[in-house]
Amino acid sequence: MTTKVAVLGAGSWGTALSIVLADNGHDVRLWTFREEQANKINETHKNEQYLEIMIPEQIKAYYDLYEAIKDVEAIVLVVPTKAIREVCQNLSEQLEHKPVLIHASKGIEPGTLKRVSQMISEEMEQYSYDDIVVLSGPSHAEEVAMRQPTTVTVASLSEENAKQAQHLFFNDAFRVYTSNDMIGIELGGALKNIIALGAGISDGLGYGDNAKAALITRGLAEITRLGTSLGANPLSFLGLSGVGDLIVTCTSVHSRNWRAGNLLGKGKKLDDILDQMGMVVEGVRTAEAAYKFAEAEGVEMPITYGIYQILFEDKKPKDIVEQLMNRDKREEMDALASLIRNRNTR
Amino acid sequence: MTTKVAVLGAGSWGTALSIVLADNGHDVRLWTFREEQANKINETHKNEQYLEIMIPEQIKAYYDLYEAIKDVEAIVLVVPTKAIREVCQNLSEQLEHKPVLIHASKGIEPGTLKRVSQMISEEMEQYSYDDIVVLSGPSHAEEVAMRQPTTVTVASLSEENAKQAQHLFFNDAFRVYTSNDMIGIELGGALKNIIALGAGISDGLGYGDNAKAALITRGLAEITRLGTSLGANPLSFLGLSGVGDLIVTCTSVHSRNWRAGNLLGKGKKLDDILDQMGMVVEGVRTAEAAYKFAEAEGVEMPITYGIYQILFEDKKPKDIVEQLMNRDKREEMDALASLIRNRNTR
Repeated sequence: MTTKVAVLGAGSWGTALSIVLADNGHDVRLWTFREEQANKINETHKNEQYLEIMIPEQIKAYYDLYEAIKDVEAIVLVVPTKAIREVCQNLSEQLEHKPVLIHASKGIEPGTLKRVSQMISEEMEQYSYDDIVVLSGPSHAEEVAMRQPTTVTVASLSEENAKQAQHLFFNDAFRVYTSNDMIGIELGGALKNIIALGAGISDGLGYGDNAKAALITRGLAEITRLGTSLGANPLSFLGLSGVGDLIVTCTSVHSRNWRAGNLLGKGKKLDDILDQMGMVVEGVRTAEAAYKFAEAEGVEMPITYGIYQILFEDKKPKDIVEQLMNRDKREEMDALASLIRNRNTR
Repeated sequence: MTTKVAVLGAGSWGTALSIVLADNGHDVRLWTFREEQANKINETHKNEQYLEIMIPEQIKAYYDLYEAIKDVEAIVLVVPTKAIREVCQNLSEQLEHKPVLIHASKGIEPGTLKRVSQMISEEMEQYSYDDIVVLSGPSHAEEVAMRQPTTVTVASLSEENAKQAQHLFFNDAFRVYTSNDMIGIELGGALKNIIALGAGISDGLGYGDNAKAALITRGLAEITRLGTSLGANPLSFLGLSGVGDLIVTCTSVHSRNWRAGNLLGKGKKLDDILDQMGMVVEGVRTAEAAYKFAEAEGVEMPITYGIYQILFEDKKPKDIVEQLMNRDKREEMDALASLIRNRNTR
C-alpha cells in the first residue's frame, strides 16, 4: 500500500531514509529549506553534497513546507537537534491534520538536557509526547543508501504508532524493531557521542584495544546509569541504539566525535580542533550537559567527568587516564544494580 | 605484601598475567609441562614463542607441577579449555593445601556446555564450586605485557576470594572489578566467540559497519538470552566480559574466530579453513554446543542457528543473511524481558 510521506531535512540521513521509503513503494516528499538544493535534486535525481548514489524518481524534493506536508500520512523529521524547535514551530503553524510523526534526530538540548521528543511536544500543540515515534540505531547513511543490511529501533509510548513506523520502513535490507522505551532509545543515540570522544582520546594517546574496550564498556555503564536515573529502561542500552550505535561510532574513523577526541589525545587544544574541523562536535556539548546533570543528581560518571576536565579545565589526557585507573576498587555493577532496584521499587 | 603465586600455563595469557603479578611484587612460579620451555624462560627471561617482551626476574619457570604449587597462596589456572580436566586431576593429586584458585580460561565444554569452574570442581575434591574465582575481560595478552591500560572482572560466589584475587592483580595499568555472577562472567568470555565468527562472515561478505553492528548487538541479545536461561545475571553481558570482550574480539583482525568467519563469508569451506589455520577455532565448537542447547531448551537464537547452518549444513552465507533480515517483525527486547521476568519471580 502506498503511503504519502514527508521527510523533513535533506542531509545524508534524511536522503537515505527517503530511499528506504521509496524502495517500499511510498510516495516521498523530501523537504529542504534551500530552494536551489530542491531544484537540483528534482533535476538530477542526486543529492550530490551528501550522497553519491542516484535517488529513485518517486522522491520529489520540496522547499515549500506547506506543499511538502499537505495530505501526507506520515512525517519523518530529520533536522539537526539545534534546528528542531524552529522547524517544529513552522510545522505547527502550517499543519492542518495529524499525520504520524517520526523523528530520527540524535542529540539532546545542552542547557536543559531535554530529548528531541520533548522539544517537539513543547513546540507543537498537535502532538502530545505519547504520540511521537523515534527511530534510532547503528546506521551510516551511505550504507543505508546502498541497501546494505541495517537494523534500527522505533520507539513510542503508542504501540500503534510504533508499529506503523515499523511497517513503513521495514524491508529486506532495513530491519526495524519496536520498543516502548522512548527515553532509553533517544538517550542512547545522544549520549554515545561522549564515549566516542573518549574512544578517540584513548586512540590518540596511542593506547590499544584493551584500553578502548574498557573505555567503551565502562562508558556504556555510565550512560546506562545516567539514562536509568532519567527514567530509561537499562536493557535498552544493550540494544541497537545503545551498544550498537556505540560500536559503530567508536570504531569508525568517520565519526566527527572520534576524530575530535583523537586530536585531543594527541595534545591539540579544543578551540583549535573546533576551528580546524569547522563543524559542530555534538559530543562536546553533550559531555558538558551530562556532567552538569550527573553532578547535580549525584550520578557517578567518572569517564564523563574526566572528558569534561580535558575539554574545559585544560587537564592532560594522560593524567585523566591515570586518575581513572587509580580509582577505588569497585564491584562491576554495583551502582547500576542499585539504580535498577530503586527503579523497580518506585 | 609478597604472595607466592603459581601460574599454570605458559602461553601468552599466562605469561602476561605473570608479569602483572611480578609488577605487584609477588613471587611468581610459571608452570609449563614442557621442560625445554621452562629452561629457556629461566635462562633468557623471555617466552619467545608467545611474547616478545622481557619477563621480570621474579618470575621463575617450572616444569615440575609439585614444585610449582608447593607452599603457594594462590593458583592461577590458564590452560586451554580442553586440557582443564587433565591438569586439574594432576593438580588434585599433588596439592597438599588449599590456596585460592583463580582461573582465566575462556570456553565451555562442547558436549556438556559446562563452564570451566564446573569442570574444575568436578575434578578437584579440594574445591567446591563456590570457592573458585574466574578472571575475564577484554585483554590482548600483548597489550597487558606492555603495561597498556586494561580492565578485567573477577567473579566468585565467595566475596572474600574475589577480593583477594582483585588485590593480587590490581595496579596502575590493570584495573580489576569484582562480581558475584560466576555464570555470566564465564559465559560472556565463551559465547562471544560465536558472534566473532558471525562478524567475520559479515565482513567477508563485504558488508559494512551497519551490518556488523547489527550482528554484534543482536548476537549479544542472543547470548544474553542463553546466559540468562542458564542462570546468569543479564547485566553481566553489559560489562567487561560481555560487551567489552565482544568488541575486542569482533573488531580485531587478530581474532582467530573473526578470521575463520571472514574466510567463510568469502565462500571457503569449513574443513579447508580449519586445515589452513591449523589450530582450534573455539567458536566453531561453541556455536554447535550453543545451538543444540538452545534447540532443546527453546531459547531463540536465530544468528547462532544461521551460523550453525553455514558451518555444518553447507548453507550459503548470503542466504542466511536474507533469512535473518526477513524474520517476522519483532519488539527489540521482548524475549529477554520475559526471561528476566521469569528469573525475578523464580
